[in-house]
Amino acid sequence: MTIPEIRETRLPGGMRVVTDPMDTVETVSVGVWADVGARHEPAEINGVCHMLEHMAFKGTRRRSALDIAVEMEDVGGHMNAYTSREHTAFYAKMLREDLPLAVDILADIVQHSVFDPEELAREQGVVIQEIFQSIDTPDDIVFDHFQATAYGNQPLGRPVLGTVESVGRLSAEVIGGFRHAHYSADRLVIAAAGRVDHDALVDLVRTHFTDLTGRPPPSPQPARYTGGAYQEPRDVEQAHIVLGFDGVSYSDPDYYASVILATLLGGGMSSRLFQEVREKRGLAYTVNAFASSYVDGGLFTLYAGTGPDQVAQLMPVLRGEIDKVRAAVCADEVARARAQLRAGILMGQESTSGRCEQLARQILVYGRPVPNAEVLAELEAVDEAAVTRVAERLFSSPPTLAALGAIKGLESLEPLTGRQ
Amino acid sequence: MTIPEIRETRLPGGMRVVTDPMDTVETVSVGVWADVGARHEPAEINGVCHMLEHMAFKGTRRRSALDIAVEMEDVGGHMNAYTSREHTAFYAKMLREDLPLAVDILADIVQHSVFDPEELAREQGVVIQEIFQSIDTPDDIVFDHFQATAYGNQPLGRPVLGTVESVGRLSAEVIGGFRHAHYSADRLVIAAAGRVDHDALVDLVRTHFTDLTGRPPPSPQPARYTGGAYQEPRDVEQAHIVLGFDGVSYSDPDYYASVILATLLGGGMSSRLFQEVREKRGLAYTVNAFASSYVDGGLFTLYAGTGPDQVAQLMPVLRGEIDKVRAAVCADEVARARAQLRAGILMGQESTSGRCEQLARQILVYGRPVPNAEVLAELEAVDEAAVTRVAERLFSSPPTLAALGAIKGLESLEPLTGRQ
Repeated sequence: MTIPEIRETRLPGGMRVVTDPMDTVETVSVGVWADVGARHEPAEINGVCHMLEHMAFKGTRRRSALDIAVEMEDVGGHMNAYTSREHTAFYAKMLREDLPLAVDILADIVQHSVFDPEELAREQGVVIQEIFQSIDTPDDIVFDHFQATAYGNQPLGRPVLGTVESVGRLSAEVIGGFRHAHYSADRLVIAAAGRVDHDALVDLVRTHFTDLTGRPPPSPQPARYTGGAYQEPRDVEQAHIVLGFDGVSYSDPDYYASVILATLLGGGMSSRLFQEVREKRGLAYTVNAFASSYVDGGLFTLYAGTGPDQVAQLMPVLRGEIDKVRAAVCADEVARARAQLRAGILMGQESTSGRCEQLARQILVYGRPVPNAEVLAELEAVDEAAVTRVAERLFSSPPTLAALGAIKGLESLEPLTGRQ
Repeated sequence: MTIPEIRETRLPGGMRVVTDPMDTVETVSVGVWADVGARHEPAEINGVCHMLEHMAFKGTRRRSALDIAVEMEDVGGHMNAYTSREHTAFYAKMLREDLPLAVDILADIVQHSVFDPEELAREQGVVIQEIFQSIDTPDDIVFDHFQATAYGNQPLGRPVLGTVESVGRLSAEVIGGFRHAHYSADRLVIAAAGRVDHDALVDLVRTHFTDLTGRPPPSPQPARYTGGAYQEPRDVEQAHIVLGFDGVSYSDPDYYASVILATLLGGGMSSRLFQEVREKRGLAYTVNAFASSYVDGGLFTLYAGTGPDQVAQLMPVLRGEIDKVRAAVCADEVARARAQLRAGILMGQESTSGRCEQLARQILVYGRPVPNAEVLAELEAVDEAAVTRVAERLFSSPPTLAALGAIKGLESLEPLTGRQ
C-alpha cells in the first residue's frame, strides 16, 4: 500500500494540474482556478470577471444552459463558481466515476461559452438582483464600503459584483475580449482532491483544455492602502462598524503572526473581542477580527454589529482592545490561537472540497503546494514578541472606518480616524 | 478488521447514546440534542429555549464563561449550539483525544449552568442584537413572517429568537424552571461521529450526566396549518416573496415524494424554478423550493427575491409552475432529483459533524438510526405518479404568502391567496 501524496504536473502551455488523493472517500472535488479577479478589471468594466463567471453557465458551442445543469445533476453532481478580488473559480463535486464528465463540462464552460446577447441581457438582470440583495443586507454591503475606503479609487477597492451601471454596460464583445486577454493557460490551475488518479486527470485535461494560449500574466496595479472614513446612516435597527488597518500579503514574513493576532483578538469564543464586547458588556451578537491577504498587501479588520444606543460605547472598547494588544499578549493566548489554527488545518483535511480549494490557492499564490507540516512549523515559530511586533506594525497604519446603519450615536469619528 | 457500525445504548434514565464511528479521521464530533424547541414554549416566554442555549455558555457551578471558552479552544476544539422549532443542540468538534473534555463541558453546561442575573441582563442585550440583525436582513426575517402567517398564533408560528419584549421579560427563575421541566433524560440524545469508541462514550456519559431526571415528555400543541397573507412594504431594493403550502410530517407516507418534488421544482440549477425564473427570464438571483417537516405537519415553500419592477411578473410565473407540476412530471426529472439526493447522502457521509447531527435527529424523530440503504430504497420507490399525487395534495391546501420589501408592484394578492 502506498500513501497517497500530492502531485503536480505543468503542461507545455503552462497550465498546472495538481491532485490530492484520498482513498477513504468515494467522491472527488475538481475545479479550475484562474489567476483573474476584480482587481484585474479596468474601472469602466468593473464586474466583468463576475459576469464572465455567470455567463459560463449560460451556454457553450455544444451545450445550452439547461444542458450544463442537467448533465451534471443527472449524475448527482453539483457545480458552482465564485469570483474574488484576485481569483475566479469554477468547481464541481461528484462521484468518482463521473470525473471525466465534470472535466469535459468545466473545460467547455471555461473555454467555449458563447456570451449570447439575449442570454447576457437576462443575466444582467440576475446579477443586478444579486447586487440589490447585497445592498439590502447591511452586514454584507458595509464590507464593500470598507474595501472602497481602504483602497480609494483603485481596482482593489472596487466591488466584485460591479455596480448596476457598470454591469449594465457590459457587452458580449467586452466579456469575450476579457476572457481572451486573461484566461491564458499559465494563469489556470486544475486542482482535484478525493478519489482521483493524477495521471488520469492529466490525460483528461490534455484532451479537453486545448483552446487556451500561454502569455505572461499582466501584473495588476500594486495595492496601495490609503485608509479613511465612510459613514452611511440608514433607518435600520443595527449599527455596523468595520474598523481596519493596512495588513500583510501572503508572502510577508509577518503573515503567520498576523493570523495568530487575528485569532487571539477576535477568532473564537475565548478571543479578547468576544470576551470584552459580547461576554462582559453584551454590546454585540457578532464581533470578530480577521486578517485578509492579497499577493501584495492585505487588510486587518475588526467588525461588530451593535445597537444605536450601544454604538457610542463600542468605539472606545474597540480602541481600548487595540491599545491593549499592542502593549502585550501572553504566552497562553498565543498557544491557544496556535492550537485553534492547528486543529482547523487538521479538520480541513477531512473535506475533499476544502483540500481542493486550498491546494489550488497555494499554487496560484505560492507557486507550489505548501505541506501542512510547513504551515504548522511556521505557526510554531510565532512567539509573543512576534505578535506584539506585528500588532504595533498593523495598528500604526492609518485606520479605515466604515459605519453603516443606526449610527447617529457615533458623534465624531475623530478619536478613531485621527493619528494613532 | 471489523467494519465500523452505528451503535445505540439506552441508559436506565432513558437517555440515548448513539455513535457512528469512522476510522479514517482523527477528529470526532459530539453533541447533546434535546427534544425541546420553540414550539414547546408558552407565548409569554417565547425565546426561552434560545436564551437557555445562550446562557449555557455563560457560566456553570464550576466554570465561568471564559473557562468554558478557554478549556475548549486550548485544545483547538470548537463548540457551538443552535435552537430550532423542535430541537436544541449543543455540539463540539475536537481531536479524538479530547473527547472526555468535550463530554465533561457539554454535561456541565447542559445540567449546571447557573443563570446568574447579571450575566442574564447582558445576554439579553446580545440576543436583542441577534433579533435586530435578523430584522435588518430582509431575506431572513421574511421567513419568520411566513411561519407566523402559516401557523397563526400557535407555538409553531412564533420566532425561535423570541421578540424584544418576550426576551426582555425572561428571568433566571423562568429559564431555570423551563430547563427543569423540559431537560429530562429521556428527551436527550448524545450523538457522536468520527474517531470514537461507543463503550468509552457510554462510560463518559454515565459519569457526567447524573443530574437529569426522566419524565414523559409533554406533547406539544398539534400543528394546525392555517395559511394567509402578510405584506410589509420596505424602502429597500428587493421584493422577497415566500409562497407556501401545508406540507408533510417526517413520518408521512408522502415524505419522500415531497422531498423529490421540492428537488425537481427548486432544488438545483436544472430545477424548474431555476430554469424558468432565473435562466429563461432573469427575474431573480435566488429562487428555490424546499420541504420542511415537523413531527406532525410541515411546510412546502417556494422563495424568490426579485426587483420592484419584476415582482408583478414573478407571481404568475410561480403560479404557472405550480400548475404545471400538478399536471405532470416526467421520468427524467424524477430520476435526476433522486440522483441528486442520493449523491447528497453519500457526500454527507464524509463529514463527522454532518453524520453526528443526522444520527441525533433520526433518534429524536424516528426513535432509531435510519440506514442509508433504507432512505435510498424509499427514494427509489417514488415514481412520477407519486410526485404528481403529492403535488396535487400539497398545492390544494390554502396558500401562505409573505411578501416583504419593494412590493408596491404587487397590486393584488387575490390570484395567489384565492381558492386554488
